[in-house]
Amino acid sequence: MVPPPPAGSESQTRQRLIDAAMELFWFQGYANTGLAQIARKADALPGSLYHFFPTKEDLLRATLEERLVRIWPDLLDPIWGKVDDPIERVFALLEGYRQGLIFMEFGGGCPIGNLALELAETHPNTRPLLAANFDNWTDAVEQCFKDASDRLPEGTDTRQLAVFVLTTMEGAIMLARTYRDFTAYDAAVTTLRDYIERLIAHGTAGEVPGARKVHSASHKRAR
Amino acid sequence: MVPPPPAGSESQTRQRLIDAAMELFWFQGYANTGLAQIARKADALPGSLYHFFPTKEDLLRATLEERLVRIWPDLLDPIWGKVDDPIERVFALLEGYRQGLIFMEFGGGCPIGNLALELAETHPNTRPLLAANFDNWTDAVEQCFKDASDRLPEGTDTRQLAVFVLTTMEGAIMLARTYRDFTAYDAAVTTLRDYIERLIAHGTAGEVPGARKVHSASHKRAR
Repeated sequence: MVPPPPAGSESQTRQRLIDAAMELFWFQGYANTGLAQIARKADALPGSLYHFFPTKEDLLRATLEERLVRIWPDLLDPIWGKVDDPIERVFALLEGYRQGLIFMEFGGGCPIGNLALELAETHPNTRPLLAANFDNWTDAVEQCFKDASDRLPEGTDTRQLAVFVLTTMEGAIMLARTYRDFTAYDAAVTTLRDYIERLIAHGTAGEVPGARKVHSASHKRAR
Repeated sequence: MVPPPPAGSESQTRQRLIDAAMELFWFQGYANTGLAQIARKADALPGSLYHFFPTKEDLLRATLEERLVRIWPDLLDPIWGKVDDPIERVFALLEGYRQGLIFMEFGGGCPIGNLALELAETHPNTRPLLAANFDNWTDAVEQCFKDASDRLPEGTDTRQLAVFVLTTMEGAIMLARTYRDFTAYDAAVTTLRDYIERLIAHGTAGEVPGARKVHSASHKRAR
C-alpha cells in the first residue's frame, strides 16, 4: 500500500476522495454514483470535492491514474510474491479475480472492464486512461510469458498471448457475474490452460510455429 | 426478420416499443435511456408504453425475451447461410461482430454483454434472461463444434470450448471499444484460431486428450 500523507493535510483529503470514488465507481458504476455520496464516504465537505475536482470526470480521471499506480502494490505484488513460476503467476492472477468474486458475492469484478463498457461512448476523454490500465495489466502478464519464453514455441507472440489472457479474464468475469456461479468462468480458465499447456508441450519440443517441422512425438508429449 | 403484425394494431405498437427499447438500451445503456425517449422513437404515446409495460424493467425483460427469439434470424442465419464449415462459422460470427463495430464506429458492441455488466448488481431479476441469452449463443457455437467433432480430439468438451469463444468475443469487443482499434480484438481472435487449429491438428491425428499417448509426429503435423 502507498503510505498515507500527513493526517489532516489537503493531500490527505484529496486521497480520501479518490479512494472513495474508486470504490463507489467500481461497485455501483459511474452514472449511479453521486458526488454527494463520494464526499460523504470520504468524510469531506462537498466544497473540498469541487476544490480538488471541478467536474465529476476530473475525479474519474484521478481514479484511473491512481489505478495505474496501484496495480502493482494492490494486485500483482501480493500474487507474484507468493508464486514464482511465471506461467503459474498468470493462473494465480485469474484465481485472484475468482476469489475476489467469491468475497464480493459477484459484485465488483474488474473495475476497468466495468467502466470501459459503461463509458466507452459517453466519456471519450477517459478512453486513453482506460486503455493505459489495460496496457499496464497486459504488460505484467506479457512479462510472465517472456520469463517463460524458453518453454513456449519459438516465435510465440507474447503480447498477443497476454491480450488473450485479458479477454479471457474480462469475458469470464462477465459470465460469472451474470450466471452467479463459476461454471463458465472455470470453463474459460480451464480451456486457456489447455491452450498454454499445448504451447508448452510444443515449445519444450523445440517447435518452430509455422515451420511445419516434423519432430519426435515422444518429446512433444513429455510433460 | 419476423414479419410485422397488422398495421395500427395494439401488438404493432407493443412491437415498436420493444424495437425502440432494444436499440436504445444497446447503444446508450439502460440507465441512460428514458421512457419518454423510447416512446418518442417508437412513435407511441407515453400512456400506451405504460399500458404495455407498467415498469421500465418490464420493458427491459421484453427486450431480452425478444433477443432470445431474434438471435437466429438477425444474427446467426445470415452467417450460417453464407458459411458451411462449422469451424469457419464460429470465426465468421466473430468477424460479424468486428464488422458491426466498424459499421457502428465502435458503438453498440454486444447488447447482452453491455447490459450484463451494467445491471448485474442493480437488476438481479434480469440476470436469468441475460444468462438465457448467453446460453442461446453458446448453444449455437457448441453445435458448430459438435458438427466438427470428427476433427477435434476425442473427448473435447464442446460446451467449454463454446464458452471460451464467448469469453473471447466479449473481452475482444470490450478492448476494441476502449482502444478504438482492432489490434487487441484481432490478437484475441488470432490466438483463438491458433488454439482451435492445434486441437484440429491433434484431433485429426486421433489424439485422446489426457491419455499422454505417444503417436506419430508426422500425423500430428499433417495439416
